[in-house]
Amino acid sequence: MIETGFTRAFGLEHPVVSAPMARVSGGRLAAAVSAGGGLGLIGGGYCDPYWIEAQLAEAGNAPVGMGFITWKLDQTPELLDRVLERKPRAIFLSFGDPVPYGDRIRAAGARLFCQVQTVADAERAVHAGADVIVAQGTEAGGHGARRATMTLVPEVADYLTGAAPGVHLLAAGGIADGRGLAAALMLGAQGVVCGTRFWASREALVPEGQMRMALGADGDATVRGKVIDSARGLTDWPARFDLRTMRNAFVDDWTGREDVLASDETARADWAAAAERGDAAMAPPIVGEGIGVIADAPGAAEILARMSAEAEARLAGGWR
Amino acid sequence: MIETGFTRAFGLEHPVVSAPMARVSGGRLAAAVSAGGGLGLIGGGYCDPYWIEAQLAEAGNAPVGMGFITWKLDQTPELLDRVLERKPRAIFLSFGDPVPYGDRIRAAGARLFCQVQTVADAERAVHAGADVIVAQGTEAGGHGARRATMTLVPEVADYLTGAAPGVHLLAAGGIADGRGLAAALMLGAQGVVCGTRFWASREALVPEGQMRMALGADGDATVRGKVIDSARGLTDWPARFDLRTMRNAFVDDWTGREDVLASDETARADWAAAAERGDAAMAPPIVGEGIGVIADAPGAAEILARMSAEAEARLAGGWR
Repeated sequence: MIETGFTRAFGLEHPVVSAPMARVSGGRLAAAVSAGGGLGLIGGGYCDPYWIEAQLAEAGNAPVGMGFITWKLDQTPELLDRVLERKPRAIFLSFGDPVPYGDRIRAAGARLFCQVQTVADAERAVHAGADVIVAQGTEAGGHGARRATMTLVPEVADYLTGAAPGVHLLAAGGIADGRGLAAALMLGAQGVVCGTRFWASREALVPEGQMRMALGADGDATVRGKVIDSARGLTDWPARFDLRTMRNAFVDDWTGREDVLASDETARADWAAAAERGDAAMAPPIVGEGIGVIADAPGAAEILARMSAEAEARLAGGWR
Repeated sequence: MIETGFTRAFGLEHPVVSAPMARVSGGRLAAAVSAGGGLGLIGGGYCDPYWIEAQLAEAGNAPVGMGFITWKLDQTPELLDRVLERKPRAIFLSFGDPVPYGDRIRAAGARLFCQVQTVADAERAVHAGADVIVAQGTEAGGHGARRATMTLVPEVADYLTGAAPGVHLLAAGGIADGRGLAAALMLGAQGVVCGTRFWASREALVPEGQMRMALGADGDATVRGKVIDSARGLTDWPARFDLRTMRNAFVDDWTGREDVLASDETARADWAAAAERGDAAMAPPIVGEGIGVIADAPGAAEILARMSAEAEARLAGGWR
């Protein structure tokens, strides 16, 4: 058992949180992660109230949290109150300014997790009253920015030591097994947030063709860009955040012509239909570089047990 | 003392190599690193025979190695023989195909280090007969590519376990203190290659204005791009490699207009004159994201002692 300040504060068996991947991390995955000794988060992402309601129902009474894309929540801030009424353990905010939400979240008894991509973001998260700061590196799947986990984590750790020593620090981006977990602890994190590792799980909401493509891939096969956001019409994403996915023919074809794609109604309709069918040649798996050390999709509880056991063995000297 | 398969094979006190930073890692730095218990490399980079000769003389009889930019060495391959006559401990090749050089290097009694940026590169390095593979993440300063250290290292480790278990694996990119060294060992590396940490040392060949700018910076202040290579007329760099430097007014001004800069003789002449003066507002420090945890420029021996002591303390349980 790996005990850290984070596991003690949250009463967890493993210092592992499942990332709130939009539309992939449903109530079933979040509940399985919490039941397995970690902390599970539902991917509230783009703030669709019907989907969120359904996933909260799916999670039942499991102690889970909810993630939001902050700039999207800014457009429907009342949704936060409806979720807070359900007494989530945590609200996880990323990609925007958390300051307007800090007081309401804490007043409702939920813990505030702020995911940050730069040191400047971390300063803003402390200002928002974050209980937990998640330093996310560029190797992560899905939306993110440019700093890498290896440097962002120790630098944010140094900042927190001086400015807010009570805030817990987690590492995200590229952590897909016990080696990554042990490395994150060495860098100064008290735990990790894993996306890709739980994307490839039995409980994740992932089409079969995407799962097959991702499990066969190495970590060279992903790329950051704006093509898929353009295909989805999500052109209001702030410029500094882009999306890591696997490369496929569609991504290669449109890279450098994202503006054309965003205004090509026919191409976008074709893409949407293909995505609906789970066609991975059009809609690529949204995974990070860590997919290169992932070859199966077991249940979330097994993922947690494996990661912890491997990390414990390395921390006990198994790295030699 | 941290003992690994790499320190045993090379008879080192610390599992730390100084990166062969072109024109920054001279003979004095390389000798100081080797004298301090690590392995020092001279930055032969662009293969200027006069500079290389002078730095080998500066290193004297110290057991150092030499680094080359592989695609540049392809243009003057006879230089390799002249360097091999000097009996370097190691030849470090990066950014190109090492296969044509493997036999000559090993026949001369030097060890072959191949720096790789992808899993595919690692396969090629094994084919070249590499003794040591250096997995370099995107957080590194100077030239590099897109994969991050956190995922590239364990994935290459898995590949080597199956394909070439006798090859030593080192991590590079973003490793600037004992936390990074300890993390690299957890990921499956037997040691690390540090650039930025030795860039900020007493022995490095760095203009004073650049040093001052870098020591005051955080890790958010760097960026990868092609502006500085365009300013230097180095337009024959393979497209997949770009250069991480600090951002400055010049980099910001020309980003997106690299082609214009490359053919603007006046702008390039202005830049060259400013670089000659060490003007950091024009010629930025070529450092990586790790600069954010670096605040001083001590001697190389002190850097090695500090890194090792900090890593040992964490490996012994100090991470808790």
